[in-house]
Amino acid sequence: MSHSADQWHGRGMRTSGLDLPLRIDRSDPRPLSVQLASGLRAAVTGGLLQPGDRLPASRALAGELGISRGTVTAAYEQLDGEGYLRSTQGGGTYISGSLAPSAATAPRRPAHEHPPARALLDLTPGQPDTRRLADSSWRRSWREASTESLHVTEPPAAGLSELRTEIAEHLRIARGLASRTEDLIVTAGTREGLTLLVQSMQLDSARPILVGMENPGYPSACAVLTQLGAEVLYLPVDDDGLMVDHLPTGNPCPQIIFTTPSHQYPLGGRLSVARRQALLRWARHHEAVIVEDDYDSEFRHTGMPLPAMAALDPATVVHLGTFSKILTPSLRAGYLVASPALISRMVAVRERMGNPVSIQTQLALTHHLASGGVRRHIARTRRDYRHRRELLIRTLAGCSSVSTRGLDGGLHAVLDLRVGTDVASLVSRAAEEGLLVADLAEYYFDGRPDPGVVLGYGGATDTELVRSLKILIDLIENP
Amino acid sequence: MSHSADQWHGRGMRTSGLDLPLRIDRSDPRPLSVQLASGLRAAVTGGLLQPGDRLPASRALAGELGISRGTVTAAYEQLDGEGYLRSTQGGGTYISGSLAPSAATAPRRPAHEHPPARALLDLTPGQPDTRRLADSSWRRSWREASTESLHVTEPPAAGLSELRTEIAEHLRIARGLASRTEDLIVTAGTREGLTLLVQSMQLDSARPILVGMENPGYPSACAVLTQLGAEVLYLPVDDDGLMVDHLPTGNPCPQIIFTTPSHQYPLGGRLSVARRQALLRWARHHEAVIVEDDYDSEFRHTGMPLPAMAALDPATVVHLGTFSKILTPSLRAGYLVASPALISRMVAVRERMGNPVSIQTQLALTHHLASGGVRRHIARTRRDYRHRRELLIRTLAGCSSVSTRGLDGGLHAVLDLRVGTDVASLVSRAAEEGLLVADLAEYYFDGRPDPGVVLGYGGATDTELVRSLKILIDLIENP
Repeated sequence: MSHSADQWHGRGMRTSGLDLPLRIDRSDPRPLSVQLASGLRAAVTGGLLQPGDRLPASRALAGELGISRGTVTAAYEQLDGEGYLRSTQGGGTYISGSLAPSAATAPRRPAHEHPPARALLDLTPGQPDTRRLADSSWRRSWREASTESLHVTEPPAAGLSELRTEIAEHLRIARGLASRTEDLIVTAGTREGLTLLVQSMQLDSARPILVGMENPGYPSACAVLTQLGAEVLYLPVDDDGLMVDHLPTGNPCPQIIFTTPSHQYPLGGRLSVARRQALLRWARHHEAVIVEDDYDSEFRHTGMPLPAMAALDPATVVHLGTFSKILTPSLRAGYLVASPALISRMVAVRERMGNPVSIQTQLALTHHLASGGVRRHIARTRRDYRHRRELLIRTLAGCSSVSTRGLDGGLHAVLDLRVGTDVASLVSRAAEEGLLVADLAEYYFDGRPDPGVVLGYGGATDTELVRSLKILIDLIENP
Repeated sequence: MSHSADQWHGRGMRTSGLDLPLRIDRSDPRPLSVQLASGLRAAVTGGLLQPGDRLPASRALAGELGISRGTVTAAYEQLDGEGYLRSTQGGGTYISGSLAPSAATAPRRPAHEHPPARALLDLTPGQPDTRRLADSSWRRSWREASTESLHVTEPPAAGLSELRTEIAEHLRIARGLASRTEDLIVTAGTREGLTLLVQSMQLDSARPILVGMENPGYPSACAVLTQLGAEVLYLPVDDDGLMVDHLPTGNPCPQIIFTTPSHQYPLGGRLSVARRQALLRWARHHEAVIVEDDYDSEFRHTGMPLPAMAALDPATVVHLGTFSKILTPSLRAGYLVASPALISRMVAVRERMGNPVSIQTQLALTHHLASGGVRRHIARTRRDYRHRRELLIRTLAGCSSVSTRGLDGGLHAVLDLRVGTDVASLVSRAAEEGLLVADLAEYYFDGRPDPGVVLGYGGATDTELVRSLKILIDLIENP
C-alpha cells in the first residue's frame, strides 16, 4: 500500500504545504512506524522537507495512510529523538532548524514545482550567534589539537590540567573569581556537571537526594534530576531571583539548591547581596550545597555584575560554567569549581564513569583560550548582543500589550503579555508563520504563570529579529 | 618547616631516585595535604618528576616531612584523581605516563645533576598504537569538522545521523553486522553506552537493576554499575568464555548480562556457537538483555571471527562498540546497536541528560570513516599487532615458566605463571624496573585466580616489547 503525493495533497494536507512520497508496505518486514520514520527521514535528507515545515497532525496522517495513530506518534517520537523534529507548546510538529541538510547537499526543488520553503525564524532561548565563531584562532586550535598528545590514552578524570589552568584564568578575568587549577573539573556541560555532583552524593545516601529548584527554572536541570532518581522541591522566585525567605527550615531539607543568581533563568532577576548572604547562611546551617548556574554572566548589559557566589563561600558553592553561550552548545564543554572535598568526591565518580570530554575538544579549547580567541569572540558577540537588545527594546516600545523583563544580561528576554492572553495559541500561530518562541509556562514546574513568552535574541540576525518581533506584535494585537 | 632535597635524599629516599624541594609550611592557611599535593604537582609540571618515577611510600614520606600518613595519602589520592599518578597492584605509586609534560615544555634536567629518567615501559592493557594515527585523513577530518555545522546547536540525542550511517557501514564491512542508521546511538565510549542502558531501565524499576558480569571481567564496567546503584552478580568464565550452564534460573535473575563473546576480557576465550545459542535462549526466556561488549574484534589474528551475537538476535542483544582500540581512547567515542524499543528508551534518557559527544568529534569521525581513513588505519595497525603478537610468542617460547592465553585476537595476552608465584611482588618488582603490567587478580571480582599477568602489546614498539618481555622473564626466573 502506498500513497502518492497527489493522494496526500488531495486530502486536505494543504495547510502543511507538503507533498511527500510516503510508502507504507505491509509486506515489508519492518514495523510500520519504522517505515514511516524512514520515509520522513529520507524526505529530510533529500531536501523534500525543509526546516520549519510543519508535519501533518498524527491523527490526520494516520487516516491518510490507513495506519493507527499510535504508529504515526511512534515514528514522530523516533524522529524527534533523533533531532529531526521539534514540537511546540501548541502541539505542532516541525522539521528542526538545526539538522537541515546544507545547501550544498540538499537537492533544490525547481521553483515551478514547489513553493520555496519559508526560512525558519528560531528564537527559542539558548542559541548563541555562531556565525563568526570559526575565526583563525578557532581553526588553528582544532588543527593543533588533532595532532597533539596522541600518546594520551584516557582523558584525566578532572580534565587536562592545562585546560583547567586556562579556565581558571578565564574565570579570574571574565568573572573576577579566583580559583586554582585543582579547584576545577572540566565537564561536558551544565547538565553533566550537575550529574557529577548528584552522583557524588548518591552513593552515601540511603534516601533519594532532595534538590531545591527555582520555579520557574531550567527545565533541563529538572529532567536530569528526575532521570537520576533525585527528588525535587520547587522554590518560588520573584523579580529579584530566588525568594530566600521561603526556603524550608525543617524536614524535608534539600541537600542541594540549584540556583541562577546572576541572571535568574528565565525571569532575568539578579539575586541581591542580602539574599545571597541569607542563602549562604541557610546552606551552612543545613549543610547544603548551593549550585550557582552561571550560564550567561559573561554577557552583562547594564549595571555592574555582582561577584560570583562561589567567591563569597567556596566551601558551600559549586559554580557551574559553560562554553555553550560564549562559544557553541555543539561543543558540549563546561566546567565546575568546587571545594577540595567535593572535587575529590566528583573525581572519584569520574574515575568510575570515565571522563566524556575528548582530549581533542579539551586541547582545542585550551589553545583557543590561551591564544585570546575566546576573549575576542566574547567581546565581539557581546557588542552584537547589546545592539540586538536595543533593537528589541526599540521595536517593542510601540506595542502597549507587551512589556519586557530580564534584559539586564544574557541572550534572552521575557515578554509579559496582557492577562487573559492565550499564549499556547499565540506560540502555535507564530510557529505557523515560521517563528519559534517559547511559552513562559514551559519553565514553570507547577503553578500557573502570568502570560508571557520567552524569546532568545542571540542567534538571529538584526533583520531576522526585527521581522520576528513584527510577526509577534501582529499576532498579539490581532488575536 | 621545609625539607630540602638534601634532607630528603639523605634520609633513605634513594630507592626512588627522587630529589624534590617539597615545602610544608604550617603558617600557610592551606591544608597540609593541599600543600603537599601542590608541591608534587609543581614537580611534575616542572619536569622534576618524570613518567614512571616512583613516589616514596606514604609512611616514609610522612616521617620525612613530619606530617601524618593520612595527609600524605590524601595528597596522593588527590593527584591520583587528577591523573598525575598511577598505583599498581603491588602498592607502588608512580607518576603517570599519560600526563607527562611534553619534551617541548618540560625543562630538561642537566645530565650531570640528575640521572636521566628511565623511559617507562607501560604494557598495561587497553592502549593501542597511536603513532601513525594523525595521517592526512585524520588531520583533514578535524579541519573540516571545526568549520562545519556551526549552526548545529545541540548534538541530536542519538548522535548525528551521518555518523550513524557511516558506523553502520563500518559494522557491515568490518564485522558483518547489518544495522541501519536508526538502530544506532553514538556514545562517549563503552562505559557511557552501558550507563545509558542501565539508566533507560532504572526509572521503571522499583528495585536496583541486577547485572550479571563475567568473572574475571572488565573492572571499569563493574565500577560503572556500582556507581549507578545497580547490583552485580558474578558469572564464572572458562577458556571458552562465559559458562552459560551456570546462569541463574530462579530469583534473583539478572535483567542484563554483560559479556565479551568475541574475545573474553581478559582471558581471551571465544564463546562457541552452542553457548551463544544457549545464552540467547536463556535471555529470551528470562526477558533479559545481553550486552555484547565487542571491544576489539576488528583485530582477529587466527581463525574466522564468529558473527556478532547481535546478528543472531537483534531484539535481545545490545552491541557495544568503541573507537578506543581502533583509533584512540582519548577520542571518547563509541556506539551501540539495539532494538527499536531499547533505542527509543535510551534516546529518551539522552533527551533528559544531553548527548556528551561534541559535534566536532562526531563530524571528524564521520569524515574519517567516510574517507576510508579509519579502514586504512585498522589495516596497518592490524599488521603491526600481528607482528608484535608473533614477537611475543617467539620471545616467550624459551621460557618454560610462562604459558600464554588469549592471543587469538586483540591487543593483550594473559601470561600464566607457575602455581605459587607471588604475582603482586612480581608486578611490583617489574614496576621498579620501569615496566608496568597488570596482575590477573585485578580482573577477578571475587575468588582467587591462578597466578598470571595481563600484558598489552598494542602500544609498545617492537623494541620496547622485546625489552619488556626480557625484563619480565628475568624477574620470573629469578624471584
